[in-house]
Amino acid sequence: MIATVFFRKITFYNQCRMLHKTAINYSATVTFDRYKNQKKFSDVQSELVSSLMSSPKLKDQMPDVKNWISRLLNYTLEGGKRSRGLAVPFAYEIIEDPKHFTEENLHRARILGWVVEIIESYVLTVDDIVDSSQTRRGKECWHIHSGVGLGAVNDCGLLLSCAFELLEIYFGNEQIYSDLVKITNQTVIQMCIGQHLDCLYVYRKEKNDFDKLIKNQIEFFDLVKPAVYSFKFPILLALALVKDRSITFSEEAYNVDLNIGRLLHLQNDYKDVFVDDIKTGKVGTDIQEGKLTWFSLTALQRCTEEQRSIFKESYGSSNPEDVKRIKQLFDDLDLKNLYKQNERSMYEDLVQRIRDLPTKEETQFFTQILDGCYKHFC
Amino acid sequence: MIATVFFRKITFYNQCRMLHKTAINYSATVTFDRYKNQKKFSDVQSELVSSLMSSPKLKDQMPDVKNWISRLLNYTLEGGKRSRGLAVPFAYEIIEDPKHFTEENLHRARILGWVVEIIESYVLTVDDIVDSSQTRRGKECWHIHSGVGLGAVNDCGLLLSCAFELLEIYFGNEQIYSDLVKITNQTVIQMCIGQHLDCLYVYRKEKNDFDKLIKNQIEFFDLVKPAVYSFKFPILLALALVKDRSITFSEEAYNVDLNIGRLLHLQNDYKDVFVDDIKTGKVGTDIQEGKLTWFSLTALQRCTEEQRSIFKESYGSSNPEDVKRIKQLFDDLDLKNLYKQNERSMYEDLVQRIRDLPTKEETQFFTQILDGCYKHFC
Repeated sequence: MIATVFFRKITFYNQCRMLHKTAINYSATVTFDRYKNQKKFSDVQSELVSSLMSSPKLKDQMPDVKNWISRLLNYTLEGGKRSRGLAVPFAYEIIEDPKHFTEENLHRARILGWVVEIIESYVLTVDDIVDSSQTRRGKECWHIHSGVGLGAVNDCGLLLSCAFELLEIYFGNEQIYSDLVKITNQTVIQMCIGQHLDCLYVYRKEKNDFDKLIKNQIEFFDLVKPAVYSFKFPILLALALVKDRSITFSEEAYNVDLNIGRLLHLQNDYKDVFVDDIKTGKVGTDIQEGKLTWFSLTALQRCTEEQRSIFKESYGSSNPEDVKRIKQLFDDLDLKNLYKQNERSMYEDLVQRIRDLPTKEETQFFTQILDGCYKHFC
Repeated sequence: MIATVFFRKITFYNQCRMLHKTAINYSATVTFDRYKNQKKFSDVQSELVSSLMSSPKLKDQMPDVKNWISRLLNYTLEGGKRSRGLAVPFAYEIIEDPKHFTEENLHRARILGWVVEIIESYVLTVDDIVDSSQTRRGKECWHIHSGVGLGAVNDCGLLLSCAFELLEIYFGNEQIYSDLVKITNQTVIQMCIGQHLDCLYVYRKEKNDFDKLIKNQIEFFDLVKPAVYSFKFPILLALALVKDRSITFSEEAYNVDLNIGRLLHLQNDYKDVFVDDIKTGKVGTDIQEGKLTWFSLTALQRCTEEQRSIFKESYGSSNPEDVKRIKQLFDDLDLKNLYKQNERSMYEDLVQRIRDLPTKEETQFFTQILDGCYKHFC
């Protein structure tokens, strides 16, 4: 049985790769090579932490304080895929006119990539406290970690202020500083709104309010979009760095970005329920928390009256028996296959949209990004 | 008994007022008139909330989201004394050269005052979650409030990003925008560090580590100072608004500010233990949390071996009997009187320092600020 599943997975993966390679008729000259970039990108992390510690605001602090902030940054930044952070130097390299391209600017793009990663760590740390999660990126969540506890709430503020502090240390005397601050705060506010909606639209058995869940489905997936603009933040930061300030990305490109965000969102819903936490590094809690996900909504749309009763009784409960019942319900409704079809059609639609983008830079960027993201699916 | 205490309180208050009036030999032309300013200042709050709601980032959000953010802001901003917020227009009015003074700029100073108030609300909301407090400003803490819970952690991020968003809405196209962002983020980072130290230096019975508390006493009160720069933030914002960018406050003035901060810190320690929560709007938890305060440190310095055993056994416990024992210990050690003497000598020292400040603007500003703060003591 396991061998069959494995074989099917490999076959599906190869199909996806083939589809991907043939569907996009553009030969990329720069590739989003995770290994090459990741090494150089990683090297910048320790520079960042030491820049922060020797900045005027931190250099005279007590050793206890400095150790704590280093530990907080290193712990919460460790273990992520870093796709969003890496996207900043990658986008910069693609967009910048070669005659203005400098290694120094590429380094600055990596710094900005780490600002993106710190904001990401902030959001994940908040998310884990709010959801009372236990694990993240294959280890204990920060708030569960020894000696942290609810002090993690204050640490979230430290993470945010460190991100803004880095912008000041590296760009504080430049004209683009204001833009970088505006782009960053815009992302923070949108992420907070996304997180709020994620908490707001949950099924509570005692309220028996799953009709509200269905009613809000369209609104939710349409309006939560600011929170899923996954690669808009890195692109905007990279654009702020390029010499020619008239370069922008098209509306269509941001629309592609939005749809890649939706695909990632969908993937997260899937992983939370169906993928082993040893692989994802996070024990899923969506069913227990009564979260509004593609699975809960599709289940509600397709279930019989009897199945609806099971849903009403068991969704949003952390009792293992209830969780088991919901997973069985998802199986009975064939949601895994339905998900795969949905994912594939979203992917194909994206491939088409990316091919049709107005500039070759946009096509090149999103081809590689989609490639990088889609690998995790198959 | 109550009448005697009341009479002594009134007498002491009058003595303080007299001391204050006669000690500072400078006749203020602008007064920090809480009632006049507070009305105009309060009127700006609703303008701010509606500016935020009609900003590009929020105007198209779901009504649920907009309602939530308005509710969050209005609830957490309500009921405070607003001294720090009011200090911005007050400082602006004193510092600005009359020939450059405009009503429009005074209005902008009030906007910045609200940014200060939002940052203050952020810190208090974090503090209440971390300390598991129940009440603040005479009502339920935000995280205790109906329908909030741990989602309050995400709301803290919303408060911070709303403060930065306001800077962008009102000052985003001006040269001073960068300075305002830097001043604000500097304050956030310092407040987070203060909050962290407040969590770090607590007495835990199971660790029996009160020797560490004493050892760290000097370091704590010396290095926690960034967190107690109470009026530095409003002054820096006001300075950013004045036409003549060469105006600065002297080092001595910031030193006075630091000492006013210490006085406020001391006052908070006192109120937490000795003042009825109906008056303070907050049920004290310092004893229960094992906090490092003037009272716990002074008790440890003055107690006998026997009293030290009581401290070790009962401090940092939420058992009402333990709390009662600690309060009794404080009484036995005459800490209330000792506190009053200490407070008075800090006040007299401040009066002298304020009189000696290099400019009349600084003297005028801090005379009024000390007056405003000291009222709460007596």
